[in-house]
Amino acid sequence: MTTKTLPTKQLCEMVDSEEADLFVLMTAKEELTTRDGKPYFRVGFRDAEREVSFPIWADSPWSVDCRDAWTPGEFYKLRATYRESNYGPQLEIRRIRPVADEDVAAGFDPAMCQPRSRFEPTAMLEELITTAREEIADDALSALVVDLLEAGGDDLLSLPAATRNHHAFVGGFLEHVVSVTRTCVYLAKKYDEYYCDMRPPLSKDLVVAGAILHDIGKLRELEQHPQGAEYTAAGHLIGHILQGRDMVREAAARHDLSAETLLRLEHIIVAHQRLPEWGSPKPPMTPEALIVHHADDLDAKLHMMAEALRDDNSDGAMTSSRNPLRLKLYRGES
Amino acid sequence: MTTKTLPTKQLCEMVDSEEADLFVLMTAKEELTTRDGKPYFRVGFRDAEREVSFPIWADSPWSVDCRDAWTPGEFYKLRATYRESNYGPQLEIRRIRPVADEDVAAGFDPAMCQPRSRFEPTAMLEELITTAREEIADDALSALVVDLLEAGGDDLLSLPAATRNHHAFVGGFLEHVVSVTRTCVYLAKKYDEYYCDMRPPLSKDLVVAGAILHDIGKLRELEQHPQGAEYTAAGHLIGHILQGRDMVREAAARHDLSAETLLRLEHIIVAHQRLPEWGSPKPPMTPEALIVHHADDLDAKLHMMAEALRDDNSDGAMTSSRNPLRLKLYRGES
Amino acid sequence: MTTKTLPTKQLCEMVDSEEADLFVLMTAKEELTTRDGKPYFRVGFRDAEREVSFPIWADSPWSVDCRDAWTPGEFYKLRATYRESNYGPQLEIRRIRPVADEDVAAGFDPAMCQPRSRFEPTAMLEELITTAREEIADDALSALVVDLLEAGGDDLLSLPAATRNHHAFVGGFLEHVVSVTRTCVYLAKKYDEYYCDMRPPLSKDLVVAGAILHDIGKLRELEQHPQGAEYTAAGHLIGHILQGRDMVREAAARHDLSAETLLRLEHIIVAHQRLPEWGSPKPPMTPEALIVHHADDLDAKLHMMAEALRDDNSDGAMTSSRNPLRLKLYRGES
Amino acid sequence: MTTKTLPTKQLCEMVDSEEADLFVLMTAKEELTTRDGKPYFRVGFRDAEREVSFPIWADSPWSVDCRDAWTPGEFYKLRATYRESNYGPQLEIRRIRPVADEDVAAGFDPAMCQPRSRFEPTAMLEELITTAREEIADDALSALVVDLLEAGGDDLLSLPAATRNHHAFVGGFLEHVVSVTRTCVYLAKKYDEYYCDMRPPLSKDLVVAGAILHDIGKLRELEQHPQGAEYTAAGHLIGHILQGRDMVREAAARHDLSAETLLRLEHIIVAHQRLPEWGSPKPPMTPEALIVHHADDLDAKLHMMAEALRDDNSDGAMTSSRNPLRLKLYRGES
Amino acid sequence: MTTKTLPTKQLCEMVDSEEADLFVLMTAKEELTTRDGKPYFRVGFRDAEREVSFPIWADSPWSVDCRDAWTPGEFYKLRATYRESNYGPQLEIRRIRPVADEDVAAGFDPAMCQPRSRFEPTAMLEELITTAREEIADDALSALVVDLLEAGGDDLLSLPAATRNHHAFVGGFLEHVVSVTRTCVYLAKKYDEYYCDMRPPLSKDLVVAGAILHDIGKLRELEQHPQGAEYTAAGHLIGHILQGRDMVREAAARHDLSAETLLRLEHIIVAHQRLPEWGSPKPPMTPEALIVHHADDLDAKLHMMAEALRDDNSDGAMTSSRNPLRLKLYRGES
Amino acid sequence: MTTKTLPTKQLCEMVDSEEADLFVLMTAKEELTTRDGKPYFRVGFRDAEREVSFPIWADSPWSVDCRDAWTPGEFYKLRATYRESNYGPQLEIRRIRPVADEDVAAGFDPAMCQPRSRFEPTAMLEELITTAREEIADDALSALVVDLLEAGGDDLLSLPAATRNHHAFVGGFLEHVVSVTRTCVYLAKKYDEYYCDMRPPLSKDLVVAGAILHDIGKLRELEQHPQGAEYTAAGHLIGHILQGRDMVREAAARHDLSAETLLRLEHIIVAHQRLPEWGSPKPPMTPEALIVHHADDLDAKLHMMAEALRDDNSDGAMTSSRNPLRLKLYRGES
Repeated sequence: MTTKTLPTKQLCEMVDSEEADLFVLMTAKEELTTRDGKPYFRVGFRDAEREVSFPIWADSPWSVDCRDAWTPGEFYKLRATYRESNYGPQLEIRRIRPVADEDVAAGFDPAMCQPRSRFEPTAMLEELITTAREEIADDALSALVVDLLEAGGDDLLSLPAATRNHHAFVGGFLEHVVSVTRTCVYLAKKYDEYYCDMRPPLSKDLVVAGAILHDIGKLRELEQHPQGAEYTAAGHLIGHILQGRDMVREAAARHDLSAETLLRLEHIIVAHQRLPEWGSPKPPMTPEALIVHHADDLDAKLHMMAEALRDDNSDGAMTSSRNPLRLKLYRGES
Repeated sequence: MTTKTLPTKQLCEMVDSEEADLFVLMTAKEELTTRDGKPYFRVGFRDAEREVSFPIWADSPWSVDCRDAWTPGEFYKLRATYRESNYGPQLEIRRIRPVADEDVAAGFDPAMCQPRSRFEPTAMLEELITTAREEIADDALSALVVDLLEAGGDDLLSLPAATRNHHAFVGGFLEHVVSVTRTCVYLAKKYDEYYCDMRPPLSKDLVVAGAILHDIGKLRELEQHPQGAEYTAAGHLIGHILQGRDMVREAAARHDLSAETLLRLEHIIVAHQRLPEWGSPKPPMTPEALIVHHADDLDAKLHMMAEALRDDNSDGAMTSSRNPLRLKLYRGES
Repeated sequence: MTTKTLPTKQLCEMVDSEEADLFVLMTAKEELTTRDGKPYFRVGFRDAEREVSFPIWADSPWSVDCRDAWTPGEFYKLRATYRESNYGPQLEIRRIRPVADEDVAAGFDPAMCQPRSRFEPTAMLEELITTAREEIADDALSALVVDLLEAGGDDLLSLPAATRNHHAFVGGFLEHVVSVTRTCVYLAKKYDEYYCDMRPPLSKDLVVAGAILHDIGKLRELEQHPQGAEYTAAGHLIGHILQGRDMVREAAARHDLSAETLLRLEHIIVAHQRLPEWGSPKPPMTPEALIVHHADDLDAKLHMMAEALRDDNSDGAMTSSRNPLRLKLYRGES
Repeated sequence: MTTKTLPTKQLCEMVDSEEADLFVLMTAKEELTTRDGKPYFRVGFRDAEREVSFPIWADSPWSVDCRDAWTPGEFYKLRATYRESNYGPQLEIRRIRPVADEDVAAGFDPAMCQPRSRFEPTAMLEELITTAREEIADDALSALVVDLLEAGGDDLLSLPAATRNHHAFVGGFLEHVVSVTRTCVYLAKKYDEYYCDMRPPLSKDLVVAGAILHDIGKLRELEQHPQGAEYTAAGHLIGHILQGRDMVREAAARHDLSAETLLRLEHIIVAHQRLPEWGSPKPPMTPEALIVHHADDLDAKLHMMAEALRDDNSDGAMTSSRNPLRLKLYRGES
Repeated sequence: MTTKTLPTKQLCEMVDSEEADLFVLMTAKEELTTRDGKPYFRVGFRDAEREVSFPIWADSPWSVDCRDAWTPGEFYKLRATYRESNYGPQLEIRRIRPVADEDVAAGFDPAMCQPRSRFEPTAMLEELITTAREEIADDALSALVVDLLEAGGDDLLSLPAATRNHHAFVGGFLEHVVSVTRTCVYLAKKYDEYYCDMRPPLSKDLVVAGAILHDIGKLRELEQHPQGAEYTAAGHLIGHILQGRDMVREAAARHDLSAETLLRLEHIIVAHQRLPEWGSPKPPMTPEALIVHHADDLDAKLHMMAEALRDDNSDGAMTSSRNPLRLKLYRGES
Repeated sequence: MTTKTLPTKQLCEMVDSEEADLFVLMTAKEELTTRDGKPYFRVGFRDAEREVSFPIWADSPWSVDCRDAWTPGEFYKLRATYRESNYGPQLEIRRIRPVADEDVAAGFDPAMCQPRSRFEPTAMLEELITTAREEIADDALSALVVDLLEAGGDDLLSLPAATRNHHAFVGGFLEHVVSVTRTCVYLAKKYDEYYCDMRPPLSKDLVVAGAILHDIGKLRELEQHPQGAEYTAAGHLIGHILQGRDMVREAAARHDLSAETLLRLEHIIVAHQRLPEWGSPKPPMTPEALIVHHADDLDAKLHMMAEALRDDNSDGAMTSSRNPLRLKLYRGES
């Protein structure tokens, strides 16, 4: 008996009743029981843009394998038929095995199974490095910022901005930071011109450095898994605001930064969430910290709003309030 | 006996021991008593950039005139010598009379006695009108905004942004609104591009219209006097957020605005202070309202910070916390 | 085969095993699935005082019709047997068809399917109009109040006081407003006598007008459907406090109200919820506003308490805290 | 040299330059020093409706007596001339001696020197007793209320409702309680009729008893001095809410009250301030407690508003916010 | 047919597939229905350390008895086989009957079915009595404390410290009070020595008496049932803080306590939760009250933490936040 | 003319009319003006236990020296007569010169002019070091704690615990830390025994280390001047919680601490103020952090209470509320 050759597709491309081979990440396996006492499993598989969740009944041929072998967080190669049933999308599995090394040759890449930024991480990182070089006149400060970006490495390229709430996808950190930094470059130039006689003068250098580094502690607060990012123990107990300041202080030991500049930069990081109940032990006490806070806060909230408007399926002019802003949003009458 | 001819100077230009003629606004007249029971008056006079406060003792030749005739809020022509004493700047008055109509020919202008924006009000108003015409594509909306700006007339040109706290000077309203509007034009373009698939798409038209009109109700909340702006009764009982929405609704009756656009614009005004305890009965529930709120909030707070850094006379690296932000600010070690 | 003739009953009158014809509103149709994967629908039907919810299994003769045709929010004529089973009340449907125009002749009235005030809406409206005429001495103010009441029309007769929380039934608005107005007439007379020398004197006119109109904006905030009232988009984005003030201002253009009276009346509406987090951008700053706030607040909270005491089924001396007050209430030991 | 005979007047009746004999309470004696180092005293004297405060200079003939003998809280007979000077009203003292027993015959009564209710305390107390007898059907409850009122004695007749904020004058307690009780009688009847099917039925008995007794603990919280009421130690450490409940429980031992009625009455007292931060450890959990809270809260706030409108001397349409409500109030344009 | 003789075991000792006789408390009986409409019951039985919950299906031989006779809160003698299935532990019931008087001879004790303190209640009570005798020098105060402890009787021995949150088991009250008292003895001695010149001196007597009696009102706030403690009506409407103070005042009538000592002791009880929103109408205003508050607060929170660390089954370094502290706790990496 | 030889006394020992030589710190020089316009200075001098403040009039022989030369923060040798006048204690200065090097031989020590702990700083430091050695079993942790204590040097010996509020005197830091540490040793032993099965076990090591180091960041937050401690710029912008964690992390680089132990120790410092609005970005999430928080909080608040009871001069049973707790305290009836 020969094996049929099937196309390898992405899960998100499949249409009703289509059969294909596909690489997926197992995201969930939950043991449940029907009300008449029969056990079954509810499993989930995803690629970057679609997630499918369905039951494996006790009388399924996969029942034993599912219980004993399938593991959330692992990647699998499936042969399956995609069905859009009354109970939502389903997969009828024909074959399933863990991804093996040779699958890379066949096109497997773990990143293909995670939601990701629309923008290219390396390009975003490059933009930040260029901004740090061109918009920060203080050489030591510019070098410190570039140093921390370059030290971030692959982690930085894939880091989300948060585990949920906003930019919770591969590259989300960079997407958020690039956006905040662009706004901050604009605001620093604008307000420096506007308050030309402020004493001390507004430091565009610090606004830009603060914008790029305000969330850098996320590299220590979060650790990345195939299923998404999770808090580290230190992330829970200490938090990215303090951890980001640590990273800046450690890097400062390698650069000839003035004590004054370092202190002002640390303050921007410490104060960027503004309120103590949002995690900042000190409020913004410099104009630079105030600007970075507002640019960050707007970018995060606007992203939550855009995602809630995109994802909400309720009827009518308003979305539900089940979103990170806990607000009904107006999507309009159309 | 002939009258000496003296140069007419501005109070803020005078140097120690200089005698001159000058036009000033009387800002204060307070009846006090020394601890040994002698009555005296403390009076204040100002021009646009300097305010001087000093006693008129009971044995002064001006004692009776001061008590019976001098009136805060009136303009006076003085001949006086300016003294910088241990008790601060003083004026030794030689002559004093209320300003008369013919003084206008001699250069008197009530505006010369009030603090004012560094920027030219008519130029700022012109910029807003141009922005409304060029950056708002919806003709009815553009016309409504221009209509409200043009209807504002002289009041709009001189209005402060607030009675205290920020931009509390002639032209402050326009200075604040121009700054917020510039930021909003930037942010609307940036985020429209960024969230190109948001549904409904981000409306740059509404962001810009909202930026220009967010505080328009100040025209009804405040009334302007020579000594500065004060709240009207309706300003106290209703407030500029509701009054500004009234003005937009009244103007909408004269323009062919869609109901949807009007509702979204009203919401931007209603929500622009974000929190109920700051006066907004509804939080921002559209992306446009969120952007206007952040641009407004940053501009107001940054202005408070710049003024506090400029005006604080305390020693050391930190200012006092006696400023509208109620925060010590860092001015640095230099 | 002839059709049996059956009496037409109200759902709330039916007893166990009784068969009858009845007019009902379909309130819910939810597609569910049993744990072993079989789809079924849970449907709900109601008249004014009873709501019944039960499953339509896949093997029911109504299964296909239910899925394809039955629509929540529509009225139906049923022939059905009422059963009180272990799973609560059920309907065994024999026949079902949408209500037709000729059913009105047979006694159908959409209002018969919605919970409603114990009091007659037209009588309540009449009482308000009479109160406005008799207790408001200022002719213009009296006319304005009557005008707004008469303009409310049928909407006003059926409006609930809220979508949930209190008086959430047909006529609830009038029931609440009549009660608040009665209390306010009492309090205005009492306190006017008590503070006979207050300056300005307490205005019974304004207390009564404010009581009648405090919630008038609900007419714009809510729109009524057979299933109950829901927020309009403007209700969400602007809110009944501002909308009610709009209605008063629009009506004032048709009446010769003094500016002072209009301002005080607007303030009562704006301030009637007292706290910014409850939606009032200004707190009561006049005695009249204070009185209307307290009468309104007590009436709403007492209604919540009375309903919670009536509806709570838990055992013991205390109710549960699952009520709009989020409080356990004491019903006593008996 | 014979002593002139002068009329005995009340301080509040005197006109500029009038000389008379008068009985007053000394309310203040503060040792101050002029800025050039000379000591003097500022003293205050009052009768029920006017308070006068003025300096006794070191070179006054009264200087030594003032320092050594005059005592705040004591009553004095003065012969003095009343002057309305630029520094406010003054007394030029000719003679001064402590009030003696025989002055009672001459018309002295300590109560004539304290601000007091416009209403007659005994009449108010009588009204409360009558209300307790007529409006409380439960004999034991009625007797308990009357018992506590009668036990209050003279203290009750003179007690203020608070040391400041509202009804802070002789008879203020009764004035406030009578007003609250009247409102509660009205509301209990109204809502009992309105919610005729509430289970358990609304108890007018408890509403009325709770209204009369809600503040009874003030008798223990405050102690009265000629200068006004002050907190006792137990008042500070325990508070009138708990102390009032004690008094009810102690009285209940003398009456045949049902346990259920006692518990509900205690709860009204415990909950009458509603919020924990206002002193109530439990919120209203019965309709009776809710009604008493609202009647009490409105009466206290309305009194603060009436006094602030009466006493505020500032210009313009709004009062200052220096009143117990910490709110600017609208007094209107006239 | 003879009856097999089986050992009588405790439920918590049984192992998989073991059959035995056992005494248990029925804790739950809930009527449910499978998704295909079949009714069944979910029942719970417990002894002191293990609780088992499982279904009684409609086709079980116990189905009718379960519905008609079994009663939560009753004790039963079971003969059953214990099974550890995939759905958690189960009992296959062979025989079941209510516990009878003669079962006491066979070892039944209601207390054997409730979770209980690790410590012996009588020993804990004895420790408190000894502490009251040895560490309280004031004879009247010492006697009052001992009196209240002795009057507590069996209720006191079994009382939990709360219905949930902390020490919610038989003897929990004593366990918590003993711990707080020990800490307070330490702190009173330490700080008395430390602030040897405090005026008035720190009263170790009051700290110790306050520690022992701070929660004594729980005896009235809660009533104990086999299934656990529940709030009494008075507990809901008044609360243990006020009820505990009542008990102290009632006891004080039997002892020759000074008024000052009684007032200070009452204040410790009234203030021991510190914040109004936690139930204390007054904050600690004496050093003694401050010490008792801190010792109590730490002991309660530490117990919540210890239980959450013990009971949480989640993976990873942090517990979930589903515990009374609503905090994720760090259990560490091991 | 020869110079009289006078005894050198401490300011706090002097009695009325006594003349002596004395070493003092100048604490204040404020230029004021009398109401009739005459300038004068108000100056202050202190030793460790008494501060005296009095005017230097314009006609004083010291007037010019005072204005031109005397400098707050400098130490002076005075010859002066101490007077207890009606205006409080005064010094009649006969001679005054800055302290010179040779005065050290005559007994001058800057520390003699500052308020200081009753306890010997070196003994307190020694106790902490001993505790760290004996009560911390983990050698690396013990060494790290000792290291930080020894590195603190003279700064540590003189540091106050705060600039105001509590322990604001020389040695106050050590006094507070010793007290917190003693309490923590007691609590760690007690609760370790009590929760013998907690997982992970309670770490007495960490409780003790956390107690000793919880405020160590004060060394960087504050800088000490003769007039008292003040915040550094970094203290304002970053704060002692973060700075103390920095010190621990820097020290950890020199010791072989496990990552787990370091993380738990950092968390104790970060969380020791518990609430975000008190400066802790994370709440206590370990039992060790909870214990340190409570011991610290009690010690600080009890010190505020003891000082307020000691320093308050008001009459009656209650103190005023002008103390760092903002509470009236009960001092009792005696």
